[in-house]
Amino acid sequence: MQSVLMRDRQLYIEEVEVPEPGPGQVLVKSLACGICGSDLHMTLHGNDFVELMKREGMLDASADASALQLRLGHEFCAEIVRYGPETARELTVGSRVTSIPFLHSGDETQGIGTEPGTFGAYSQYFLLSERNMLEIAPDLPSEAAALTEPLAVGLHAVNVAALTPDAAVMVVGCGPIGLACISALKRRGVNTILATDLQQAKRKVAMQFGASYTLDPSQQDECEYLSRIAESRPVVLFECVGSPRMIPNLIRRAPEHATIVFIGIHSCDISISPFYATMKQLNLKFSYYYTPEEFQESLMSLAANAMPWQSMITGRVGIDGISEAFDALQQTGEHCKIIIEPWRVGTLLATRTP
Amino acid sequence: MQSVLMRDRQLYIEEVEVPEPGPGQVLVKSLACGICGSDLHMTLHGNDFVELMKREGMLDASADASALQLRLGHEFCAEIVRYGPETARELTVGSRVTSIPFLHSGDETQGIGTEPGTFGAYSQYFLLSERNMLEIAPDLPSEAAALTEPLAVGLHAVNVAALTPDAAVMVVGCGPIGLACISALKRRGVNTILATDLQQAKRKVAMQFGASYTLDPSQQDECEYLSRIAESRPVVLFECVGSPRMIPNLIRRAPEHATIVFIGIHSCDISISPFYATMKQLNLKFSYYYTPEEFQESLMSLAANAMPWQSMITGRVGIDGISEAFDALQQTGEHCKIIIEPWRVGTLLATRTP
Repeated sequence: MQSVLMRDRQLYIEEVEVPEPGPGQVLVKSLACGICGSDLHMTLHGNDFVELMKREGMLDASADASALQLRLGHEFCAEIVRYGPETARELTVGSRVTSIPFLHSGDETQGIGTEPGTFGAYSQYFLLSERNMLEIAPDLPSEAAALTEPLAVGLHAVNVAALTPDAAVMVVGCGPIGLACISALKRRGVNTILATDLQQAKRKVAMQFGASYTLDPSQQDECEYLSRIAESRPVVLFECVGSPRMIPNLIRRAPEHATIVFIGIHSCDISISPFYATMKQLNLKFSYYYTPEEFQESLMSLAANAMPWQSMITGRVGIDGISEAFDALQQTGEHCKIIIEPWRVGTLLATRTP
Repeated sequence: MQSVLMRDRQLYIEEVEVPEPGPGQVLVKSLACGICGSDLHMTLHGNDFVELMKREGMLDASADASALQLRLGHEFCAEIVRYGPETARELTVGSRVTSIPFLHSGDETQGIGTEPGTFGAYSQYFLLSERNMLEIAPDLPSEAAALTEPLAVGLHAVNVAALTPDAAVMVVGCGPIGLACISALKRRGVNTILATDLQQAKRKVAMQFGASYTLDPSQQDECEYLSRIAESRPVVLFECVGSPRMIPNLIRRAPEHATIVFIGIHSCDISISPFYATMKQLNLKFSYYYTPEEFQESLMSLAANAMPWQSMITGRVGIDGISEAFDALQQTGEHCKIIIEPWRVGTLLATRTP
């Protein structure tokens, strides 16, 4: 089978053996896989992670960048090919499924597409744990099901915020995670949602997802605008740009008593001024992953057609076009979610005009 | 009257005119005033604040260190001397009072003992706003009433934490603010309180205030200990050392899902690793001051003899011994709260053996 390996900041298509499902595991065929911001980050800054993990004793001091050879792909829809031993086999072979990206082998758990040693959905076949599999409704396209994972990230961030429906919310950045937050906020009954993005096309999609206001932060002071629309209500910000510079920026500029939820993963150290956090009595919350229940709720919201998920997808690419897609995601801010179809050969196709 | 002025990192005793109470104001005589960590900080690092405030446009760019001439003293017990115009005069002259340290002049509000232009309780006389005054119960000593303010800081931090009584709590640093947190935690029904301090004498007082466990962090890993006693309960940390280095330190070392409440005021920038905050999904809360209701609750808890406040006070000093007391507080970690008696001449007296 063909499998994409990330090594030394490059992606390689390799011909490798199809993996064998162990006890409780299932061999699946990748139908569609989203490119996540963390896939890009690992490719660009993976060496920083290796250094950080060495510094903290999470990796052996002798480890080098080669410790971070990853077979990426953790946002997927897949098809059941073959069950391993000790499986209940409730779903028929050929059923379409998704899953939280974790593979259990005895007492061990590994991240699918995020840790060395597993195959992810940038490979034509990979392994799932039967107990994590969720069936996809027949009328939900595979590319939509692949959005379950980023939607769960946004939903978890909204749950972490522990906000009330009367909150005045700002979603900073309208990429997939920003849109996922907006979608979850709407389902939680929040009606004051200011979405900000430098790209007009993304602001337009944010409105389709349910934002009440949008704004270009290069043209207007978004924190000042938020304070004005909030009046005396609680204020919650979601940092969905994923840039480390946004942490000190929002600490300095957020309104008084704001809760700020940070969602990105950052391998670098940053400098902050605690003075602002103290004077404004900020509440800084850091959100990471999601619970299995949040993952399931996200799949159900897709199946219920609760959001215009089609507008989130800006491109499709075959297995040989992934590097091109990475470049497109990094170089312009125009793309939102690009879906890999690992069985297709083909370069990047834009599915909507940015 | 005699009044202490902080200027260029030095304290000067000056002979100045007794201030005149304006509408709604009351002239009071300072009976006892605590030395606060922020008084020390302003004296040591006041120039940093001036630079920070200039950078942010909170002070004019031409301002220099002389902008920070402060007449300190915001933790006090005082005696009513004379009412200004437009006052209701419900308390008789000679009554003992305390107050949140804010003085209203028309629509303007200034910090008493914390902002240029007001007298604080390091002066023999100063002004209060009648509407903020709280009467002191006859059997509560003046030095105890002066502890109302730091107790309110701790109480506010506990309220900011929004914890449940089943939380496993660590109070980092057993100075006045740490003890204030412990006292408030006990009143909120929290029964698992680990208090840490380098000084054995302070750990002993923490036990008297209601800590369940104490620990010397130079000898034992306090975060590991906290995780162990917490089992699966929510974990809350209160940073009461007031050192900026504790912010990255606790972010790196706190248990997963911990809430950390930071109470100190820091004028410098600090470097943090957001990686740890994200992986552990930390909740960082910054607490500042208190509400008038929290101030009143703290005074009531003193009057109700709810804590062994006597153990918090480690020294008394006359107006001519304040520099000596500042040195003692900065140089050794042994002192806790030193009370200034502005009508007495006399050097620092230790009231308990550290």
